[in-house]
Amino acid sequence: MAVSLADTDTGTVPPIVTALRAVLPADRILTDPDLTSGYAHDEAEWAPRGQPAVVVRARDTAEVAATVRACAELRVPVVPRGAGTGLSGGANAVDGCVVLSLEAMRSILEINRAERLAVVQPGVVNDELRAAVAEQGLWYPPDPASAPWSTIGGNVSTNAGGLCCVKYGVTKDYVLALEIVTATGEVVRLGRRTAKGVAGYDLVGLLVGSEGTLAVITEVTVKLRPLRTAPTRTVVGFFDSLSAVGDAVAGVTDAGLQPAIFELIDRHCLRAVEEWKHMSLPDDAAALLLAQSDLAGPAGEAETAAILAEFVKAGARDAVASTDPVEAEALFDARRLAYPALEQRGDAVLTEDVCLPRGMLATMLARIEQIAERHQVQIANVAHAGDGNLHPLMITPQGDEEAKLRSQAAFEEIVDTAIELGGTVTGEHGVGLLKRRGMQRELGPAAVALQRAVKAAWDPDDLLNPGKVIG
Amino acid sequence: MAVSLADTDTGTVPPIVTALRAVLPADRILTDPDLTSGYAHDEAEWAPRGQPAVVVRARDTAEVAATVRACAELRVPVVPRGAGTGLSGGANAVDGCVVLSLEAMRSILEINRAERLAVVQPGVVNDELRAAVAEQGLWYPPDPASAPWSTIGGNVSTNAGGLCCVKYGVTKDYVLALEIVTATGEVVRLGRRTAKGVAGYDLVGLLVGSEGTLAVITEVTVKLRPLRTAPTRTVVGFFDSLSAVGDAVAGVTDAGLQPAIFELIDRHCLRAVEEWKHMSLPDDAAALLLAQSDLAGPAGEAETAAILAEFVKAGARDAVASTDPVEAEALFDARRLAYPALEQRGDAVLTEDVCLPRGMLATMLARIEQIAERHQVQIANVAHAGDGNLHPLMITPQGDEEAKLRSQAAFEEIVDTAIELGGTVTGEHGVGLLKRRGMQRELGPAAVALQRAVKAAWDPDDLLNPGKVIG
Repeated sequence: MAVSLADTDTGTVPPIVTALRAVLPADRILTDPDLTSGYAHDEAEWAPRGQPAVVVRARDTAEVAATVRACAELRVPVVPRGAGTGLSGGANAVDGCVVLSLEAMRSILEINRAERLAVVQPGVVNDELRAAVAEQGLWYPPDPASAPWSTIGGNVSTNAGGLCCVKYGVTKDYVLALEIVTATGEVVRLGRRTAKGVAGYDLVGLLVGSEGTLAVITEVTVKLRPLRTAPTRTVVGFFDSLSAVGDAVAGVTDAGLQPAIFELIDRHCLRAVEEWKHMSLPDDAAALLLAQSDLAGPAGEAETAAILAEFVKAGARDAVASTDPVEAEALFDARRLAYPALEQRGDAVLTEDVCLPRGMLATMLARIEQIAERHQVQIANVAHAGDGNLHPLMITPQGDEEAKLRSQAAFEEIVDTAIELGGTVTGEHGVGLLKRRGMQRELGPAAVALQRAVKAAWDPDDLLNPGKVIG
Repeated sequence: MAVSLADTDTGTVPPIVTALRAVLPADRILTDPDLTSGYAHDEAEWAPRGQPAVVVRARDTAEVAATVRACAELRVPVVPRGAGTGLSGGANAVDGCVVLSLEAMRSILEINRAERLAVVQPGVVNDELRAAVAEQGLWYPPDPASAPWSTIGGNVSTNAGGLCCVKYGVTKDYVLALEIVTATGEVVRLGRRTAKGVAGYDLVGLLVGSEGTLAVITEVTVKLRPLRTAPTRTVVGFFDSLSAVGDAVAGVTDAGLQPAIFELIDRHCLRAVEEWKHMSLPDDAAALLLAQSDLAGPAGEAETAAILAEFVKAGARDAVASTDPVEAEALFDARRLAYPALEQRGDAVLTEDVCLPRGMLATMLARIEQIAERHQVQIANVAHAGDGNLHPLMITPQGDEEAKLRSQAAFEEIVDTAIELGGTVTGEHGVGLLKRRGMQRELGPAAVALQRAVKAAWDPDDLLNPGKVIG
């Protein structure tokens, strides 16, 4: 039996490590704190994290089940994780837990063109799945910003969104079936391979977005769409005021248009990108709106023209439509580079994720400006404008503890403002640790009690990712 | 206090009736068996039904809550129902229960164009909602065949499908938020008004399709789409063999086409419609496939031509595309009239609802022919071909008990065959009473246990629609 240096150093081997060594190959088990600390947290700034007793890197469902059974027997918490790209602390360890990494389960088991579905292990990376199905003329739409690194299992656990979901829906809309390991270590298959089905409660839907608190996901069957083939057309508009931005978003919605992407980048982001990359972005616009049409032929032309007309009607300057893919990509770079442009300044960036009724977008942006001023915090905004899903980015100099406290206060005030305006505290990042208070305020005690009842029914000993979501 | 004639006749008033009379206006309460028997069942042939103690026709959420509280106190079962158009016995009474009719709660509370949503009471009829939102340029896609009569509350409770769901999804895809009354009589709001949201478990999705076993739905917020404005194009093809039909469906899928409607009518239905309405339908075709494109302009033309090409390639005869709405309507009449054409013969029609992987459609149709022959039962088929969702219609002479037993045996064999071929026992009608055995076979004991755990957590005394789904 392999004994790690760390065990020898401390002289004690936790019972769970002994139990896991009895049922798993030695190379699946990490106990060296230098290695396990990298598995102790996700990308959420400032979310609390504990020290795991051990990290298990499972290779198949049987190993996941064996791990969970050992944990159930010894009453040790299990924290499942994919790539750890989450932004709410949902994958953060609790002290003494087993972190169960699904990253090594990365086989694409089936791509079925006739049934328009794929079956994958949870550690398959989003972009890898998208590339593999594209080769078969198929498309998996959910495209979180983390797509180059994040796993399908993690995407399912957080019900990840992305740019395309304004027209094509979120992860939940694409999950047909799951294989799971329950809190007792039992392997159960849920869902179906058919286009429709209503046999019993929608437990697949219940698990999507449950952040590892109800079961460990070991296999995912996703629905696919035909690959889009029409060239996309991009419409861009710079606006002088947030109210004009709000008018443009409302106008596009009211006109019955359905852009495939509809994004906002505010002046703080534009400036950060411009300072970093010198893309000749105007430095005096309040925000940039970027919309994309993916309709073919004249329908795409008509949609693009109609979006442009709404931008102009709302008072955009420099509004323009483009079919040149190079030009369009350059415009989308401003969106993609916003976050790294802020981060490369050496600052900590705390990412918010509130979602508002579309009509409240401009109001919310104005309220965020007031919150930033009141708390003396720099807040830049990107948003999935068409969904009303804002990502205020709170920028705090590294190591400045006072600034950190001010950012956290601003974060909570944004959450409360979203609730006040009829929105939700999290549009696509999940509750994890950072949104627990906000979620409880948003849902109220009766709805939270119904959530807790489900959790207690499936995981009475609170072993699966304890403290997250409803913890 | 009003005392009904029925009570006086029998001389005994059940305690639940006394309790309800104390908390509800008299005209909400029906106890006359001549009246209550009409509320004791849905449209499922031969599903067992009990005799309710009383029917409550609630007018608002407070009356629903008062009813459920009275039932909880006296441990009396509650069977919620909408219009009673279900086909699985999901709304059938159990002896001594309170049937809680939501039909009188039929206000459309809000239609919001800016947020593309509507808020309705559960008794609003599907077609009424569709008409009301259409006036605002909006569209509510789910269109079960019962749309002229069935209620949104019933549609949500069964996760109703319809013709359009092959492209636009089922009821579940359109429910944003619910107000519910729990088993204890508590009023709880779940879900959100925003386009996206992941605050906590998806309890709204859990309730959709739960057939009144987890809570009583008292308000529904649905997502809407922009009203379609492009004229539709219809493609029709008659096929000589079921395998050619299967090839055509597979060809359309494989070509990446997405018809907005994609239906099948088999030769038994064609003959019944022809005999009844003399529409000059061919009497020697194995089946008719009907597809519709709703894309605008050249994209619609291209899609229609591509579907037609797949039909021809699969060996269709009389395959034709049509933009003439009158001609198209006449073709769709053959689909709409199939069920009444069979029923007007004076026979009982037991409706099946299995859903197969698309690629198994032809195999399943052939197996159904064998089952019909073996059990000496007439089985006609309509199908949402693009979804693989078949509705075998078992036709039994009224009053022929032996034929009824043969039909029931065929019904169960179809269910088992669907499971064997990788399908589900119910695509859109729900489990109710008729599919309980099949569902348990399909899901297996571990998945059923997870369902039961949810039910037990929310309704520990099994008061809400007992015996349905997992009962």
